[in-house]
Parts: sequence; C-alpha cells; structure tokens
Amino acid sequence: MRLENNLSRTFDILVEPGLLESKHSDAFSVLDDRHVLVITTPTVDRLYGERMRDLLATRSVDFDYLVLELSEARKTLDYVQQVCASAIYYGIGRKDTLVAFGGGVCSDIVGFAASMIRRGISHIRIPTTLVGQMDAGIGIKGGVNFRSKKNVLGCFHPPAAVLVDPVFLATLAIPSILQGLSEIIKVALVADRYLFEAVGTHGETLVFSRFQQPDDASLEILNQSIKLTLAELQQNPFEDQTLERLLDFGHTFSPDLEEESGFVLSHGDAVAIDMALTCTLATELGIMSVEDSGEVISLLQRLGLPIWSRLLSVNLCHSAICHAMVHRGGAVNLVVPTTIGKARFIRSPEQLDENVFRRCIDKLSKPNEDLTLSGIAKSESLRKIVM
Amino acid sequence: MRLENNLSRTFDILVEPGLLESKHSDAFSVLDDRHVLVITTPTVDRLYGERMRDLLATRSVDFDYLVLELSEARKTLDYVQQVCASAIYYGIGRKDTLVAFGGGVCSDIVGFAASMIRRGISHIRIPTTLVGQMDAGIGIKGGVNFRSKKNVLGCFHPPAAVLVDPVFLATLAIPSILQGLSEIIKVALVADRYLFEAVGTHGETLVFSRFQQPDDASLEILNQSIKLTLAELQQNPFEDQTLERLLDFGHTFSPDLEEESGFVLSHGDAVAIDMALTCTLATELGIMSVEDSGEVISLLQRLGLPIWSRLLSVNLCHSAICHAMVHRGGAVNLVVPTTIGKARFIRSPEQLDENVFRRCIDKLSKPNEDLTLSGIAKSESLRKIVM
Repeated sequence: MRLENNLSRTFDILVEPGLLESKHSDAFSVLDDRHVLVITTPTVDRLYGERMRDLLATRSVDFDYLVLELSEARKTLDYVQQVCASAIYYGIGRKDTLVAFGGGVCSDIVGFAASMIRRGISHIRIPTTLVGQMDAGIGIKGGVNFRSKKNVLGCFHPPAAVLVDPVFLATLAIPSILQGLSEIIKVALVADRYLFEAVGTHGETLVFSRFQQPDDASLEILNQSIKLTLAELQQNPFEDQTLERLLDFGHTFSPDLEEESGFVLSHGDAVAIDMALTCTLATELGIMSVEDSGEVISLLQRLGLPIWSRLLSVNLCHSAICHAMVHRGGAVNLVVPTTIGKARFIRSPEQLDENVFRRCIDKLSKPNEDLTLSGIAKSESLRKIVM
Repeated sequence: MRLENNLSRTFDILVEPGLLESKHSDAFSVLDDRHVLVITTPTVDRLYGERMRDLLATRSVDFDYLVLELSEARKTLDYVQQVCASAIYYGIGRKDTLVAFGGGVCSDIVGFAASMIRRGISHIRIPTTLVGQMDAGIGIKGGVNFRSKKNVLGCFHPPAAVLVDPVFLATLAIPSILQGLSEIIKVALVADRYLFEAVGTHGETLVFSRFQQPDDASLEILNQSIKLTLAELQQNPFEDQTLERLLDFGHTFSPDLEEESGFVLSHGDAVAIDMALTCTLATELGIMSVEDSGEVISLLQRLGLPIWSRLLSVNLCHSAICHAMVHRGGAVNLVVPTTIGKARFIRSPEQLDENVFRRCIDKLSKPNEDLTLSGIAKSESLRKIVM
C-alpha cells in the first residue's frame, strides 16, 4: 500500500517603501477575516508598534500582540514555545495567522512556531532589518539553535506573504546595516559582479544613510539582492534537489565561529570572516586570483566588517568542515569564488589540510588589524571575547 | 517577486507477518548506507530489541539505539528534544534516518523530531501496537500535547516507509488491543459496514488472541483498516483540501476527555466514549436509527470498551465543540454516522444545544455500567479518576 503527498505553495515578496502607510494597505489584505497574532520585539514595537496597531485597527483585523525580547542567543525552542503558548492562549485557529514583525531572529522563531501550531498555520513576515529583508525573512526556512548548534532544528514552512519596506532600515544601528551588507556581499560574490561593484561604489553612503541613500541605488541593490537570493532558493526550496547551494558561501566556518563565541559574535560578522577565509583559501588553492581575493578583503575592511577573529583556529576550521559534511549529506560542498560573481564547489576535504588553513589564518590575522573591527565588535568587552 | 515551492513524496506501507525474520529483510533496505538512530521503548526493547539489533548488525547498518519510557502523558516537546539531542550527539546527518520502533506515541514523537532535525531528515516507522499499525503510525503526522492540549503542536512529515508486522501484536496487553479496536470500529462506522460486521463476528477471538486469530480474518481486518484509513488520508494528506475529515469521527469530544483526565483516560477509551456519544446524538437528532446506534453501543460494551465516563458533562461537550471549531477553521464538522458504514457532517453548532447533550449523557450513564469498563479502566485507582 502506498500514500502519495504533494504540497504546492506560492507566495509573493512585495518590496515597497512606505508599506505601513494606509494608502499602501492593500499589502495587508492577506490578514483580512483572520484572527492575527503579531509577534514583535521591544525596539520595533517602540518605533513602529503604534502605526502597526493603527493600521490593523483601521482594517478591522481582529488581532493580538506579543512583544518578545529576541536575539541570536535567544533563538531557542523556549522562545518558539512562548509563541506557541500565546497563540493557543489567544485562540489562534487553523485558518488564522501569525505576523513576524522584526528581524531575522523574529522570522526564524515565528516561522518555526507557525509550522508546528496545529501542524502548520499561516504566517506573514514583515522583516525590519536588512538581513531580514534580503535573506532570513524571504525564504521558507525557520529555525533555532539547539545544544549550542546553529540552526540545527527548524522547518521549511513557506510564509503566506513577505512585505519588505526599506523605510524600516532608516532607524537601524550601523552594525545591523553591516550584518545585511555582509549577506549582500555574499550573494554578489557568487552570482553578480555588478552588485559587488555597486556595493563598492556606494558602500559608505549605504551604511551611513542606513540604506536610504543613494535614492535609486539603495533600492536597486536591495531589490537585486532579493532577486538573486530568490533565484537561488527557487531551484531548490527544500534543499532536497542538491546539497550544493551557492548561498552556503560564507556559511561553512561561520556557524562554528558563532557557536564558539556563545553567539556573541554576530552572524554577519561571522559570515564576513568566513568569506575572507574562503577567498584566501581559494587563492592559496589557485582557484581565485590574488587580485580578486584582495578586492573582497579590502571591501570588507573598508566597510568595517571583520576578516579575522582570535577564535579562528585550524581546529575550528577542521571541526567546521566535519559539521558541514554531516549537514551536507557527507560532502563538504565548500563554495569558493573563482572570480567575483562566480563560484564553484569543493566537494571533498582532501585539499583542505592543516597547512593551508594555517597559512590562511596567519595571512588574515596580520594586515590592518584596526580596520578589521566592525562597529559592534569595537565595544571593548566584546573585543576581548571574539577578536 | 514570487517563490514557488512544491514537495512531492510517496512512501510504502508494507504489511507482512514476520518482518524481523532475516528472510524478510528486504523491507529494511531503506536503511542501507545510512547512519540510523533507533528509538524504542523499554517493553519493545525487552521483547524485540535483540532481534532488531541482530538484524541491523547482519545488514551492516551503522546504528545507534535509544530507549525512552514513553506514554501519552509524556508525548511532550521535552521528549522530542531528547530525541533531537541524541540525534545530534550521535552525529545523525542530513541523509541519515531515525527509526520509530514502538507504539503510536513513539511514532508521533520520532516523526516530529525527524521533521525538525536539520529542517527535516527521513524516518521509518515500525509500529508495534494495533493503534500504531492501523492509525497513528501509517500517516504523515507527528505531534505532541502542549499546555494540556492534545496534539496541538506537530507536523506533516511523511516517513520513508512504514513496516507493519502483525506478529508484534501477539505480546500486547488486552487493553492495548482494545485501543486499536476502537480505531478500527471508528473507520468501519464511517466507511465500511462489512468491516464492522467482521469485528462483531470475530471480536472476542481477536481480543483474546491478540489479533493472531482467526488466522485469515485478523490479517484481513488489519489490512482493510489500513486500506480504508489510507484511502481517507490520500484525499487530503495535509488537511488543506478540506477540514471535513471522516477520520475525525470519535475525535471531537475525546481530546477534551483525555485532557480533562490529565491523559489518564486512554485515547482509545476516549474515542469509544466519543463514538457512543456521537451515535446517541445522531439518534436524538433523527440522523441514525435507534437500531444502528444500539448495535454500535452494544459492540463497544461487548468488547469491553467504555461508552461513558463521569468526566462527560454538558460543559465538556460545549468546550469540545468550541475547540473543534478553532481547529476546523470555524466549522464544527462533527462526523455523525447516518447508518453503519456511512457518515455525514454537522457543520454548524445550532442543533447541538444543552438539552440534547444532557439527554445523551443521561442515556449513556445508565445501561449496564459494569460492561462499560475496559481492562485498563478496571484498575480501581484509575476507575475512581475517570469513570
């Protein structure tokens, strides 16, 4: 006897400045006639909570509202359970909806909770950070850290819609903008030289204007990053077609770095360090030119992203390769750029010996150390821990 | 911008006596070349653990083994986390497999854990109880109780295969057989008069032989129950086509009964009480004949399944209707038999007033009270709590 099960879903990602203004409220029609539970963070609530509540009230949406203090260190099953408990307390039913109104951690936790409440209810994502808007918030993944392992538990649970409003970025702290830029550079390096150059041209303006300037270029860079990320996801949304994923670039050594730091090192900083290491490795192995690799490292440094941490050791690199192999079905599948905008995979760990890692780490630990610290890591206490 | 995601899966349910004998070991080829974590319970381990380990060793399967004391009261996220933690500890990777070797609670917990480990790894189910073999173990659901709410968190996560060996039933306790018979009567009542009659004809023999006798009839009844259950599931595996599900018969009042008893009242007993109540209700509303309803109640009583509990109150029935409506998208969708083998839905709660529930409960509380106790409820301490 046999059981077949096919599940087809499609959702839209709407990118539009000023979404929370009533004239744009068509975007919120997915919430009409549903009981809605909005999950947000204290900062987003302080800045945008009133406007969100007004908008929902104007549309006569029956909603409840939950404010949770979230962070990467709190991306745990405990917080998923808190969301589930609230949803049950408020009587959220099978056709009702959760709204993740916050950064990447918020959409990870809310997406995971939505996947398990009554075996899966709908959710929409309104990412308010740059990482959320071009990476964590736009896909179909939710997840949490568990037993110190980054994102090791989670789900594939498509949202009903993603609403991206770049206006939210205006109130972000600079380190938060840098987290997103790190992911933008990631997708540019493996898929689009032009995007990399645009970030090079406008980097400082983007950072200091919080992605509000230059007017056209900032929106174009955001749109292009989302478009490229979606194009990659579209080929393999459940990661069951292949475990060779271009978007895994920068995400092989970074999980171990984050875990080793107890999640004090931020995700974007860890990805930047991973990219610097991988480009240096690519040059050592003759895969990428010295010039290209130098250009990447110099852009990361110029923008204030780190390229090295004192947690980066040969041992950590080897553990990371092992962990990646467990997660990638037995193959390393290390993504290495061949040039800026193109990449290939290293499938087996043979080339990745102790000496090559040692040389790369030595190289990265030396140049321009002052420039390797991002804003967030400049705080003295954090610097001692992770740098 | 838009993201499409389609997921297609198919799995086989193999029903065959003597699966754990090496000559049948083709069934286990799904485990070859994978790292396997077997999750089982102390009783199953004591009875069949050595044979399972021998079989895996003979096939050179690289396996680890976890024994967990499970029960309905332990069907919680804590136990799911224990399975996840073990899987991570043993280095279970993305292409590896969990094996749920036990009853319905085991497959519920292992299926849910498998759905979240690395966002979903494969699992196979080897149900060892009658409920597991014809209901809980053969579908694509996993789930746990949460905040005293039955199955309110869970997943749709298809197994890679289900291996059903009726030989395992031979060592079950009689109350456990009755739990399965309750679900068999459920599917018979809504879909197959012939199956109902077969249970009527062979009931006592099935119970006392632990489904090993009569030779042909026991296997046919098991096969037919699985076939009917799968046919219902096949139309609506993710419960997204309709929230009118024939298999919800017996599952409207029973969750509240189980919750109210602190999960001391067993699932099968609660389903039996729910079926007796619903048939009585159907007769009160002129939907089912007095004769048919009487035949159902008399079979339940003859087999030793309960038709009443002192927890059954008008208030509980009303709460259950409310909870069902939240879970069924705003409609009651109460499944009521029109005759034995056919059913329809009551969609709105208007007919279900206080008086009709009071009359039904009064009726059920009276006749042949001694006959309403199943083996498990005959224990004096339990009897005080739930009867």
